[in-house]
Amino acid sequence: MSVAAQGRFDLAPFEVEGRCGEARAGRLRLAHGEVRTPVFMPVGTYGTVKGMAPEALEGCGAQIILSNAYHLYIRPGLDVLEAHGGLHRMMGWSRPILTDSGGFQIFSLKDLRKIDEEGIEFRDHKSGDKHRLTPERVIQIQEVIGSDVMMAFDECPSLPCTPAYMEASMARTTRWAARCLEARTRPDCALFGIVQGGVDIEMRRRHVEELSELPFDGFAMGGLSVGEAKPAMIETVEAVAPMMRADRPRYLMGVGTPRDLLECIRRGVDMFDCVLPTRNGRNGQLFTSLGRLTIKHARYRLDTGPPDPACGCGTCARFSLAYLRHLFVNNEMLGAQLITQHNIYYYLQLIEGARAAILRGDLAAYIGEREAGWAQEGGW
Amino acid sequence: MSVAAQGRFDLAPFEVEGRCGEARAGRLRLAHGEVRTPVFMPVGTYGTVKGMAPEALEGCGAQIILSNAYHLYIRPGLDVLEAHGGLHRMMGWSRPILTDSGGFQIFSLKDLRKIDEEGIEFRDHKSGDKHRLTPERVIQIQEVIGSDVMMAFDECPSLPCTPAYMEASMARTTRWAARCLEARTRPDCALFGIVQGGVDIEMRRRHVEELSELPFDGFAMGGLSVGEAKPAMIETVEAVAPMMRADRPRYLMGVGTPRDLLECIRRGVDMFDCVLPTRNGRNGQLFTSLGRLTIKHARYRLDTGPPDPACGCGTCARFSLAYLRHLFVNNEMLGAQLITQHNIYYYLQLIEGARAAILRGDLAAYIGEREAGWAQEGGW
Repeated sequence: MSVAAQGRFDLAPFEVEGRCGEARAGRLRLAHGEVRTPVFMPVGTYGTVKGMAPEALEGCGAQIILSNAYHLYIRPGLDVLEAHGGLHRMMGWSRPILTDSGGFQIFSLKDLRKIDEEGIEFRDHKSGDKHRLTPERVIQIQEVIGSDVMMAFDECPSLPCTPAYMEASMARTTRWAARCLEARTRPDCALFGIVQGGVDIEMRRRHVEELSELPFDGFAMGGLSVGEAKPAMIETVEAVAPMMRADRPRYLMGVGTPRDLLECIRRGVDMFDCVLPTRNGRNGQLFTSLGRLTIKHARYRLDTGPPDPACGCGTCARFSLAYLRHLFVNNEMLGAQLITQHNIYYYLQLIEGARAAILRGDLAAYIGEREAGWAQEGGW
Repeated sequence: MSVAAQGRFDLAPFEVEGRCGEARAGRLRLAHGEVRTPVFMPVGTYGTVKGMAPEALEGCGAQIILSNAYHLYIRPGLDVLEAHGGLHRMMGWSRPILTDSGGFQIFSLKDLRKIDEEGIEFRDHKSGDKHRLTPERVIQIQEVIGSDVMMAFDECPSLPCTPAYMEASMARTTRWAARCLEARTRPDCALFGIVQGGVDIEMRRRHVEELSELPFDGFAMGGLSVGEAKPAMIETVEAVAPMMRADRPRYLMGVGTPRDLLECIRRGVDMFDCVLPTRNGRNGQLFTSLGRLTIKHARYRLDTGPPDPACGCGTCARFSLAYLRHLFVNNEMLGAQLITQHNIYYYLQLIEGARAAILRGDLAAYIGEREAGWAQEGGW
């Protein structure tokens, strides 16, 4: 019997401490500390949340960040991570890190990759180098990284695809999931499985059932927010989240806008990651209590007010819309830094607020107030 | 009799508290606080030291920063500065600011400008808009900015130029200097004159004598570090600095490398500004106790040591050469931020060290030790 099957690695006990409808407030104990859920994970694909030093992330209240095993494997490479004793020490971040396996990114390479039962062969589009990743190798990479939460290596089929392809792909993802569990050697690295099945509820149900048999520390929904219509995404989450084990954290990968987060928390999701606050921040878009704010707009040229009067972040406390606009239109790096910092703070506070509302038992009112605010400037 | 001639604006009392040969350690009292000299001023042309939030600058020990009246006048424009009540509040910086008038930048426009006794007419190369700046207007702009130290509006002739042109230009700069003094209205904004004369010591002497008659709060050497040979620059400083009033701060504009700073402090200069630590930082070059370090070099790929083992900055305390290299070669913004932060800290500590050495009376030994260190990796 394998160590995985003995359950020896079940090191991420998840405790639900409050419910409000399907929504949950919980605690997830990881090697680098406890994470309060629901939680949003800022994205640091290459071992840096773009523009934010670790202390700035901590200052915003980030509890856990997301990185990407595939990208780190390509750049800087495993030898560099090994030399540092893992990603935490390399990037100076002492709180938990979750790593996506990178399956999603490799599958999006399309012409550059070849898939079989063993794994995937692909070419790095920058260097042209050929690489081969298998479930075992992906776990090994994440153990070198020292991820608090490793993600299983899954296939995320491009939609639309035939039901037959989806069936075959899900079956392979399940077999790969079992191989990932077998491959684990570090007791301090939790491992989550990934449920696929597109927007087909019955397929999702079958995959949830298959994966729930396996001793994962948590379960993610993959293959959503990849181009399907927003209502289909929300409906899928509404149907699938309650099927997932209640005693494990539920992670919705790659989602989403502030509204998406609240609507999915309401439907039972515990964990999120998304590039929106960082990427849109670099493009001059702020998420605020009044909705979306485009900093380059001429109406902010002389506006000495803060970006968001309701916000307590360092950017809103010290800088005006007019100054941020000046920085942004002149391509000053500090503009991207300050706007990113605001956006990350905004996302984290929004989720903290949802958690408090769950514990109070009035999540619906909290969501209603936030959505009414966003409507003032146009929501998302 | 004008208010300027009454000396009413002499609000920047400068006190020399120690000497070591020609070198001085002093204190300059300005509206936003006292500055210990010798001092290096990080450059924030557009109202931001590129990549550094105000608290990061304070963390590095910056006492005063430099900005540029001409650039701020063009972007974001005086109305924006007025709306904020000046640059300090706009950029969230509460310590002193010195502004260059922008004469140097306007004269470098060449084909875009026309000069006469009254002032300069030029076109903004981005918008094509025509502007006219006079000594009076330049003072008005700097008073709107709220500069702790304003610089007089001078002509900085392109070298080489004929002795006749240089004579005429210096005479006009003197007349403009007097007009700048007449134009002052804010008692909290100090005003420095600018000595020109190229690398001709006798011309410099005459200009120093002319300007010393005027009630400036300090005096700068302009027109150096603009392409002349390094020995000519050092020789000019060596000859001219001692001619300048001993009871006023002496500011060498646009200089220089770490070695230039020490060599010019040794010759009696009190204040410096230069884009090198910020610009070279963005290009991946670190100034260290061992010399110049180019971060992209393959030899740092696996180097988990700090950039400079002798440095106490936040970057050296927390990040490895290998991580900084990874950030830099992948164009991650954080790389430029962290390297800039190191470079600014390095410059400021270097000058703090020189100040302490002046007060101890062993500046030569201090400079010798620094130069021996730099020789290890190749100096500048």
